[in-house]
Amino acid sequence: MSHAWTLVSRPKGSPSMENFALRDIPDQPLKEGEIRVSNSFFSVDPYMRPRMDEGDSYIAPFELNEPMTGAAVGRVVETRSERYKVGDRVSHFLGWRDSATLKAENALPLPVGDLKDEYFLDALGVIGMTAYFGLFDVAEARPGDVVFVSAAAGAVGSLVVQIAKLRGMTVIGSAGGAEKCDFVRSLGADHVIDYKSPGPFEDKLRAAAPDGLDVYFDNVGGEQLDAAMGVAKRNARFAICGMIGMYNSDAPIGFSNLFTVISKRLQIRGFINGDFMARRDECMAQMGYWVSKGLIESRYTIFDGLDNGPQAFFSLFSGGNTGKALVRLGA
Amino acid sequence: MSHAWTLVSRPKGSPSMENFALRDIPDQPLKEGEIRVSNSFFSVDPYMRPRMDEGDSYIAPFELNEPMTGAAVGRVVETRSERYKVGDRVSHFLGWRDSATLKAENALPLPVGDLKDEYFLDALGVIGMTAYFGLFDVAEARPGDVVFVSAAAGAVGSLVVQIAKLRGMTVIGSAGGAEKCDFVRSLGADHVIDYKSPGPFEDKLRAAAPDGLDVYFDNVGGEQLDAAMGVAKRNARFAICGMIGMYNSDAPIGFSNLFTVISKRLQIRGFINGDFMARRDECMAQMGYWVSKGLIESRYTIFDGLDNGPQAFFSLFSGGNTGKALVRLGA
Repeated sequence: MSHAWTLVSRPKGSPSMENFALRDIPDQPLKEGEIRVSNSFFSVDPYMRPRMDEGDSYIAPFELNEPMTGAAVGRVVETRSERYKVGDRVSHFLGWRDSATLKAENALPLPVGDLKDEYFLDALGVIGMTAYFGLFDVAEARPGDVVFVSAAAGAVGSLVVQIAKLRGMTVIGSAGGAEKCDFVRSLGADHVIDYKSPGPFEDKLRAAAPDGLDVYFDNVGGEQLDAAMGVAKRNARFAICGMIGMYNSDAPIGFSNLFTVISKRLQIRGFINGDFMARRDECMAQMGYWVSKGLIESRYTIFDGLDNGPQAFFSLFSGGNTGKALVRLGA
Repeated sequence: MSHAWTLVSRPKGSPSMENFALRDIPDQPLKEGEIRVSNSFFSVDPYMRPRMDEGDSYIAPFELNEPMTGAAVGRVVETRSERYKVGDRVSHFLGWRDSATLKAENALPLPVGDLKDEYFLDALGVIGMTAYFGLFDVAEARPGDVVFVSAAAGAVGSLVVQIAKLRGMTVIGSAGGAEKCDFVRSLGADHVIDYKSPGPFEDKLRAAAPDGLDVYFDNVGGEQLDAAMGVAKRNARFAICGMIGMYNSDAPIGFSNLFTVISKRLQIRGFINGDFMARRDECMAQMGYWVSKGLIESRYTIFDGLDNGPQAFFSLFSGGNTGKALVRLGA
């Protein structure tokens, strides 16, 4: 028997426990080409919030009363595929459950070695790809650039800070509260802004970047996006990765600096991690090198047990986490 | 004696006559390399409004109590340059005055022929470059694309409609009122939306583009920009050329569809016409061909006499004009 979280109703605004239900799923015999994976960790990520809405056909919504999906890591426990033997470590996309049955070609083999499972849901998984391609491709960041990254203590943001420093950029990170700001500073950020401190955010950003920004890596939207337009240099590039401050609200967002898109010739591009899946190997080669040399620090907020899946997800929006939020299974 | 409009105070919100004063400027003897030009027309354009604000160093503000500048066409009446003889037709950037004294290298020679002066402040001037490079370069529009252009009865918009059709695109134009909408339709637009008609603009845009937009050429900002984000296809490109609806206001602009920047991977780029000056010849070759073959219709709203300069400028914001607004001198 497997167990999986399902979405039973679509949240209005902030999600709560009543939107979720844990279901038993009887294990069917494997078909030819399938494997069964016992998950060790699954990922909870902000982009899952818009997937809980009906809607927009560009991010497939979660189906009601079906197991939810997302990145996961585990070990093969049963196999009818020549690709995998029992005990192999794989990543796949059937998270939010303790055990997954899938076609072998929908799993990715993970290297044998001493890298912990957690890395493959972080720097060496889609989070790493989001940081890497968002910074270097979408925002076209280059050595010497002044880069601002919001939610810099978060999973993606904390990687962006570090890989931007590794590539010779000046980095400004924002986070909420002294503890998170200390963490961002420890990652090598040149300037850290506590967005919870009093005063207009734009003034603080301008003080940190008196000559302006070349790049903004946006994880939050709203006031920080508006401020970044105000402080941007001419021809600055914005990678819009997430707008976590806006996911639980329908209210229109007010912008005062939008006109600078013209006067500064800003380039603003949205992206999601899956856009670069075909170039995964390139990213893994670089990130794998940095991780293996100890040049990237990862921090995790771990929730133990499948039962805590929704709480792990809610924690993304409370501002309480540092680094990557994961759910650990079978510990 | 020359006469020139000067800005004597910076407008708060909508500009009015009290912000302007007409000044006499004694003609100085020409220096070596200079020419004197009697202007036949000068241009009034929306981008001049932000130049009236103090401000942002990316669009040089007009200096208080100095003659304002802008595109103009005229004939050389006095010369100390080997480049020009008396009677030559030139364009230059010392508009808002009846006569201009400038270095010969700051003028552009215009072809001899039967093309009226007005064309060189429109399809064969910076307006043409704005439409051409904004559509084909900034928005990367290609044959087959579904293109939405706002203020489609205006100077830039009416050119965008026509050159997009000439390149095999499906074109949706917006304008205010039945007369302007008829004009846009006469230019070849496939669908015309009267933004003054009742109901949410986004619903009308979706009805006109049920499969979504590939390109949005934005001249107005605000509600139509928000609607275009809502109706855009995945990977749609937005060229942000102007935000005429927003120039006279400091109020923040509210957006409801901003999240689609991520989910649809939108690319939003601002630009101003000067960005492509180095590629002027390419644009003039194509636009000149279309104009010479009668494939581009231009319409003008002409204000007679230097005295009417400010009124011509105010007319840009009242929604009263069709086509390019010009001030005619010495008629």
